[in-house]
Amino acid sequence: MEADFCLLLLPPLFSVKLPFQQDMESAINVLVAQFKTFAGKDGSSHTLSKDEFQTLVASQLPNLVKNASDPSAIDHLMSSLDENNDGELTFQEFWQLIGKLASAHGGFSQ
Amino acid sequence: MEADFCLLLLPPLFSVKLPFQQDMESAINVLVAQFKTFAGKDGSSHTLSKDEFQTLVASQLPNLVKNASDPSAIDHLMSSLDENNDGELTFQEFWQLIGKLASAHGGFSQ
Repeated sequence: MEADFCLLLLPPLFSVKLPFQQDMESAINVLVAQFKTFAGKDGSSHTLSKDEFQTLVASQLPNLVKNASDPSAIDHLMSSLDENNDGELTFQEFWQLIGKLASAHGGFSQ
Repeated sequence: MEADFCLLLLPPLFSVKLPFQQDMESAINVLVAQFKTFAGKDGSSHTLSKDEFQTLVASQLPNLVKNASDPSAIDHLMSSLDENNDGELTFQEFWQLIGKLASAHGGFSQ
């Protein structure tokens, strides 16, 4: 009962993963859900506008992306990811960034 | 004090994320750490052998990968990811699978 009581207190401060979820599947779910959360703020809910991308990077990737709070740096980063130059990032375009960050974070050669 | 006590009980059953960690950075960290855990079981610690890949898929991606526990299906999947056909998956080769699973899971067009 004490544990049940504590769980009710935890959500505002802690993200709790249930024991039957696999770590990798939970992580994939988090990345997809966060992308959708930020992509849904304006315009197309399936792509990131420049503003949405800047907000996402500043709040979700402040340690892995250099100059995450510098709009001009993030503008430049977005241009490098926006392969079809339509001013929006699809999930596939955004995924290339996550892969590069993961690879660098893990010390894998690019 | 009650919350502190509960945290001591939680780790064996629950994965707890501290509140100062960003969700996306934590998710990236999980994917990298799990890849390294499985890649480190035999041979090169930076690549997945066929056995390591089969173990990883069966235990970490049982819901997102079809026939995750069927060795011949996973053997076929590995061949499709192993771009240089060296019998090992680099992180970059493995990342293509995670991207496809994430994209399908999120309902994004490939």
